[in-house]
Amino acid sequence: MSKPQALIFDVFGTVVDWRSGVAAEAGRFLAGKGIDLDPFAFADAWRGEYQPTMERVRSGGRGYVALDILHRENLDLVLERFGLSGLFSDEEKAEFNRAWEKLPPWPDSAPGLTRLKQDFLIAPCSNGSLALMARLAKFGSLPWDAILGADIARNYKPQPEVYLASCQALQLAPREVMMVAAHPSDLDAAKACGLQTAFVPRPLEYGSSHGSDTQGEHHVGMNRREEWDAAAGTIEILAEILMT
Amino acid sequence: MSKPQALIFDVFGTVVDWRSGVAAEAGRFLAGKGIDLDPFAFADAWRGEYQPTMERVRSGGRGYVALDILHRENLDLVLERFGLSGLFSDEEKAEFNRAWEKLPPWPDSAPGLTRLKQDFLIAPCSNGSLALMARLAKFGSLPWDAILGADIARNYKPQPEVYLASCQALQLAPREVMMVAAHPSDLDAAKACGLQTAFVPRPLEYGSSHGSDTQGEHHVGMNRREEWDAAAGTIEILAEILMT
Repeated sequence: MSKPQALIFDVFGTVVDWRSGVAAEAGRFLAGKGIDLDPFAFADAWRGEYQPTMERVRSGGRGYVALDILHRENLDLVLERFGLSGLFSDEEKAEFNRAWEKLPPWPDSAPGLTRLKQDFLIAPCSNGSLALMARLAKFGSLPWDAILGADIARNYKPQPEVYLASCQALQLAPREVMMVAAHPSDLDAAKACGLQTAFVPRPLEYGSSHGSDTQGEHHVGMNRREEWDAAAGTIEILAEILMT
Repeated sequence: MSKPQALIFDVFGTVVDWRSGVAAEAGRFLAGKGIDLDPFAFADAWRGEYQPTMERVRSGGRGYVALDILHRENLDLVLERFGLSGLFSDEEKAEFNRAWEKLPPWPDSAPGLTRLKQDFLIAPCSNGSLALMARLAKFGSLPWDAILGADIARNYKPQPEVYLASCQALQLAPREVMMVAAHPSDLDAAKACGLQTAFVPRPLEYGSSHGSDTQGEHHVGMNRREEWDAAAGTIEILAEILMT
């Protein structure tokens, strides 16, 4: 491993706990209408539409649209599935959609990034839009140097152009950039583009019920840890590894 | 004036003192070769090529290239003009070109931005590239939320698409965004796109010799202060005005 110049990060799951954040907002909105529904089930259903809708963009079936718009469309789908469509006005649904701007970072994220920022350029390389990433960073005090990812590439990970456009925007070669993610598939795609890779397992991404699931991505990633340039239990530990 | 959601900033001259920074690096490089030349004259000559080279891109005579490349080409031009071309290797010239990544912020910039960041999204809307802006922010501890401007629009200010693409990236309407600049022409172009405007005069941008020049942009801007939504002597004062 040669020391990278920049570290770029997956965000949903790797830097922030999207499931708790979306469930908290869903709980608030559902309770406000007197609806008795498990907010985590709602969060999981909403997130469940994430890959299929992006896939239409990746495959060229639909031009690039920001993830915020896909989230908003998927909110309609999920509300309809739960029989709740008529209960929310358009303004309320727009506000509900902002749940994705209010996702708590994992406890090590902000301190780890703050430390890494001393030595490296750090930026999200997420499928979230620049607008969403900027608001999420403000919410969680994430000290990014810039915002890269889907919006600047106008496509979605794991399409290679998202990683390559992110390196190019920093005027760095792929080998000078390290992708950090909790998902092996994200690291595989980055590695295929020539980036360095760091794995940070997030066993609680899908809640504690998955904590003992040995088929989870955190297990897969750890079992494959020889394939990544670095692997660390938290972003703070990653900073220790890279900065010593 | 309705309260904006985001403030976007001109950088060269408005946030950082490009002339002192470039002169400091030029002085170091010239002295290293035993060349006796006023580093401020060198800085002014280098910056003098800035508008003409960008104009070729704006007019469509050349596709978009990042400002770093234009700076590098202009360095060749200026070295040649001073009869110094043969004295620097390509590696030295690449390093010399990084002078633009080491520009000191005006004393009020980092504290003013840090304060503004509490209430607003803040981002550069500069002709500098994302890579240059990210490195400059690190050098001067400028706490941007995102980096907007020429690179994301793939054109140069004052072309309207640079301001409009910056608003769009934040998913805000132009009226929700305020452009902050020391140059009336930049504010005129932003205003024509529907953005709010704030003028921050920088009488020392071209050195103290221009301090008594009543034709300078800082005088023009102050004389036209009724035309801007806000005018403030420093970014810290701008924060006081907008946050009370």
